[in-house]
Amino acid sequence: MDNLQSLVIYAPAMGAISLLFALYLASKVSKADPGNEMMVKISGYIADGAMAFLRKQYSAVAIFVLIVFLVLLFLLPSKAWQTAICYLVGAVCSATAGFLGMKVATKANVRTTQAARTSQNAALGIAFSGGAVMGMSVTGLGLLGLGLLYLIFEDPTIVNGFAMGGSSVALFGRVGGGIYTKAADVGADLVGKVEAGLPEDDPRNPATIADNVGDNVGDVAGMGSDLFESYVGSIISAMTLGVLGLGFNGVLLPMIIAAAGIIASIIGTFFVKTDEKSNPLKALNMGTTVASVVLLIAAYIAVRLITPDQPGLFWAILGGMVVGMLIGFVTQYYTASEYNPTRGIAKAATTGPATVIIAGLGVGMLSTVIPILLICAAIILAFVTGGLYGVALAAVGMLATTGMVVAVDAYGPIADNAGGIAEMTPDLPDSVRATTDKLDAVGNTTAAIGKGFAIGSAALTALALMAAYGQVAGIQSINLLDPMVIVGLLIGGMLPFFFCAMTMGAVGKAAGKMVDEVRRQFREIKGLLEGTAPADYVKCVEISTSAAIREMIAPGLLAVIAPILVGFILRAEALGGMLAGSIVSGVCLAIMLANSGGAWDNAKKYIEEGNYGGKNSPAHAAAVEGDTVGDPCKDTAGPSLNILLKLMSIVSLVFVAPFF
Amino acid sequence: MDNLQSLVIYAPAMGAISLLFALYLASKVSKADPGNEMMVKISGYIADGAMAFLRKQYSAVAIFVLIVFLVLLFLLPSKAWQTAICYLVGAVCSATAGFLGMKVATKANVRTTQAARTSQNAALGIAFSGGAVMGMSVTGLGLLGLGLLYLIFEDPTIVNGFAMGGSSVALFGRVGGGIYTKAADVGADLVGKVEAGLPEDDPRNPATIADNVGDNVGDVAGMGSDLFESYVGSIISAMTLGVLGLGFNGVLLPMIIAAAGIIASIIGTFFVKTDEKSNPLKALNMGTTVASVVLLIAAYIAVRLITPDQPGLFWAILGGMVVGMLIGFVTQYYTASEYNPTRGIAKAATTGPATVIIAGLGVGMLSTVIPILLICAAIILAFVTGGLYGVALAAVGMLATTGMVVAVDAYGPIADNAGGIAEMTPDLPDSVRATTDKLDAVGNTTAAIGKGFAIGSAALTALALMAAYGQVAGIQSINLLDPMVIVGLLIGGMLPFFFCAMTMGAVGKAAGKMVDEVRRQFREIKGLLEGTAPADYVKCVEISTSAAIREMIAPGLLAVIAPILVGFILRAEALGGMLAGSIVSGVCLAIMLANSGGAWDNAKKYIEEGNYGGKNSPAHAAAVEGDTVGDPCKDTAGPSLNILLKLMSIVSLVFVAPFF
Repeated sequence: MDNLQSLVIYAPAMGAISLLFALYLASKVSKADPGNEMMVKISGYIADGAMAFLRKQYSAVAIFVLIVFLVLLFLLPSKAWQTAICYLVGAVCSATAGFLGMKVATKANVRTTQAARTSQNAALGIAFSGGAVMGMSVTGLGLLGLGLLYLIFEDPTIVNGFAMGGSSVALFGRVGGGIYTKAADVGADLVGKVEAGLPEDDPRNPATIADNVGDNVGDVAGMGSDLFESYVGSIISAMTLGVLGLGFNGVLLPMIIAAAGIIASIIGTFFVKTDEKSNPLKALNMGTTVASVVLLIAAYIAVRLITPDQPGLFWAILGGMVVGMLIGFVTQYYTASEYNPTRGIAKAATTGPATVIIAGLGVGMLSTVIPILLICAAIILAFVTGGLYGVALAAVGMLATTGMVVAVDAYGPIADNAGGIAEMTPDLPDSVRATTDKLDAVGNTTAAIGKGFAIGSAALTALALMAAYGQVAGIQSINLLDPMVIVGLLIGGMLPFFFCAMTMGAVGKAAGKMVDEVRRQFREIKGLLEGTAPADYVKCVEISTSAAIREMIAPGLLAVIAPILVGFILRAEALGGMLAGSIVSGVCLAIMLANSGGAWDNAKKYIEEGNYGGKNSPAHAAAVEGDTVGDPCKDTAGPSLNILLKLMSIVSLVFVAPFF
Repeated sequence: MDNLQSLVIYAPAMGAISLLFALYLASKVSKADPGNEMMVKISGYIADGAMAFLRKQYSAVAIFVLIVFLVLLFLLPSKAWQTAICYLVGAVCSATAGFLGMKVATKANVRTTQAARTSQNAALGIAFSGGAVMGMSVTGLGLLGLGLLYLIFEDPTIVNGFAMGGSSVALFGRVGGGIYTKAADVGADLVGKVEAGLPEDDPRNPATIADNVGDNVGDVAGMGSDLFESYVGSIISAMTLGVLGLGFNGVLLPMIIAAAGIIASIIGTFFVKTDEKSNPLKALNMGTTVASVVLLIAAYIAVRLITPDQPGLFWAILGGMVVGMLIGFVTQYYTASEYNPTRGIAKAATTGPATVIIAGLGVGMLSTVIPILLICAAIILAFVTGGLYGVALAAVGMLATTGMVVAVDAYGPIADNAGGIAEMTPDLPDSVRATTDKLDAVGNTTAAIGKGFAIGSAALTALALMAAYGQVAGIQSINLLDPMVIVGLLIGGMLPFFFCAMTMGAVGKAAGKMVDEVRRQFREIKGLLEGTAPADYVKCVEISTSAAIREMIAPGLLAVIAPILVGFILRAEALGGMLAGSIVSGVCLAIMLANSGGAWDNAKKYIEEGNYGGKNSPAHAAAVEGDTVGDPCKDTAGPSLNILLKLMSIVSLVFVAPFF
């Protein structure tokens, strides 16, 4: 099968095509009409705020990346400069994807508002194209970088550095973005809505721009960097495990599956079309379905061609893909107001905040059961058909259509922003807000699905990375009957709780600063509440930005230092135990936090639709408390856990394993 | 060292002495003055309610135990009838301990109230003696039963059945008791205190007797059965592991340490004395300290005598004991209102219920860090000095003074009850309530310490049982690089979340029924609120009882069926992974729930002392919501997890391992 050698070029080539497609979509978005002067001005504020945050964040990341680069360069016992370079390239690729995605998202929002004056399909087209830029940038830069580095170094262990670079950026993107978005949100809600009685997105609320910026930095750039990490991590761990048993072909297969996923995603995007009456969700689902079917056909052919002796690997890939989708649906069941769990929380709101919280925690805990069983099913299927390599391939199968998944997910915050801009622009017809509201409602569903997918894929990726770690560290067995492994396992299981305590505390501190500032502006700026004087949006954006940057450092360091300490003090097996422990408790905690938060949010919306007394009833007030508790759970602490698990695995793989 | 053989008799002998001491204390309590007619009547209600619950609970347990007995008898592949008999004896011993403890506790409460008319020391003496009956019954019946069965069968694997019997009773005691006490508490609070505006323990509140019964069934009998399980489980797992490397001496050592712990506890009880001015906590601490010192001296001698070649085992025992105490202190730091964590929650109450909840969850998560590190330290020390056997001995060291620990812990609800009876009795001098309040305040501290200890010891016991499982199942390695082990680990990690969702939901359902009943009585019984007609306490007790019995079945079945299913479908290694996974996430979750709940409770009390606006301020209202959320967390879901971990381990050890 020597002629297969040439196929490896397809990976970077398809990455380049993905990137070109992203640029094409970006220019399409740019060319669209941004609307009237007022709209351009408001969206300018948001874009400026987002870019200001990105600049500050990337400055902080740059220092961090530089330090790690030097550490790798001078301390790694083998393949040091090669790994260090891969690390640097990975960080640059992930940062660039985030930059591109956010740049276009902050253009797409106002153009979506403007397009909503014409038709729902036009608005959906812009919003989805904006999201797809993020999606295709992630897969494009991910596969292009990874493919080229493999062509240069021809050694998966070296290319692991690329994944670690992506992880470093993801850490700051997800954690910092998560803190930013919730600090702004809580500040805008607590003072603007509750104390001053302003409606959502009111231009008199000084934190409203920061709130809209937050949607972009948290839900677009943060989510993008999270999935960049999973995407690259899953491919690289499959390559690392594949080279052992199957040689070059084992390395080739995941790259080709990823390349096929890019084509599949591009084809899928052309099926996202709607009319005035249909639910836009249908269009998004159609795109996802088409992409999945195309991927499956390609995967079948790829397995037959590259690993003809192991046709079962197809089932591993299929299993991963199906489970990724099913976890999304389960998440939807537990968090959407059409179903019993969320309605139960809404009912509990009639007896006050305490019962809302208890019910929501219960729903979150219960919602861990099926996703965990699904992940287990995927692991078993993959293991039976392809061993440890099969498990890593299942993760690749789940993540191959990341371009499409991120596109659908990033569409949400763009639609949300579009609604905000419509609200802040005085003389737009009501139909515009009606259209953006419809798009935004779908965004809530896709956000829930995306979060479930992100957690599930993080779990599978982290497990695959852990297996790769075992191989690189040369460990045959991580024995749970060895008390040192148990010690590692216990420490690992505790870390997600510690990490969550830190990130939730960070939101509290940052939000407190925002609350003070908004109160100050209402007090000191005369005419602000009457609408005759403008709010100082920039100041609020600055506060969220610097608080987020400052508060992300401690949890970030924890994620990097913990595996190093455990590895060097308690040795290789204990570190393996720590990784497993963090995955086990981290995944459950992440699912619980994300779904409790989502269900509280939608229970509140369900009451706002007129149930149990509707808006401003006691039940509504109780549900608002639940939603406020859920915000840092679902948008900061929960998603940040994905990063923790993967980052600790990749640090162990790249930095600690070579020492054993 | 053949003459050591005869030492084994000391274990059952010391168990018998412990039991005799318990009976002596019981008669001392019985002989004390129960006070006036009204007091006797009120305490009669509580005693009747508690006994009614125990009767119903034990009827349900009896059916369950009978079924399991038959299953063991007919299905176990080896040593079937012997194991089944041990199982039956274990269940009877645990149930008897619970019966004795509760019988005396419900006598001690009113006698404590009466003694408070004389002096604080007299009241403390009665309350502590009442608690000590529970404590000494637990260790007495535990060691007597275990020792005799070992003398008869001379095989630790058979005697494992005894631990499983205790576990079965603990499951129903802890879970059922936890549901009972919180259903009654929430019902009494929500309708009686919030809706009708009655003070705590007001006799017009129909749920007030059920609430006081709940303190007994949850905090006395439930806690007692939990620690019976840990106590027996730790000794038996040390015996199982010890016989392998050290033969008979390895079996003897844990039994002798346990016997020494009984003497130590008895001696300790004589140091619990106070005067009118001192804090009663000092007296309790003195008792605990004396017991610990005596135990250490005895342990040192025992190790020198029985295992002279392994003097290091002493350090394992010392480590376990010290860590058990330290976890208690850490728990106190995170939950007592003297320290920053709880005060931070109180401060967060000034901005509403949502911030109270977020702050409390953060404190709970953060509070997992140090206990986990302490447990890890104990494991490392024990492993280095004594291998896996050392780890089991550390658990024995932690639990040897269980008699004293349970005495201090069960003292709390007795003092709480005494306060309730004082409140409900019309013409008592204010000084009585002042004295009982002082005793009760100490009870809150000892309860927090006791909960921390229960979780920590459950973790160590479950780990020791898991190691014993590995040995009996004949597994050399439970390899985390084997995907089936990872599947087991993931399932195990999810089960505590599932279990908590069930128990929290159960409290919600049971409390709902109680709320309806209390509302009905206020509506239908004319003159109740005016104090001219009596409330129907019995009806409320019945509702709590039957709801608790009904709702404990599903989580109970989960704990028994999960290890059986995983063991038989996914095999021995996966089951080992499941046990480890459940311990890792279960311990963290249990600590978080217990400490969040404790901190919320005390943050509320801190505000009631006059801080942040004091009683009836907005901050107080917010803190009450936090406390209500915390109730099922700290008194039902959290403590029930202890049982889940141990029960799954023991089921695996006794029922599943023989099949491999």
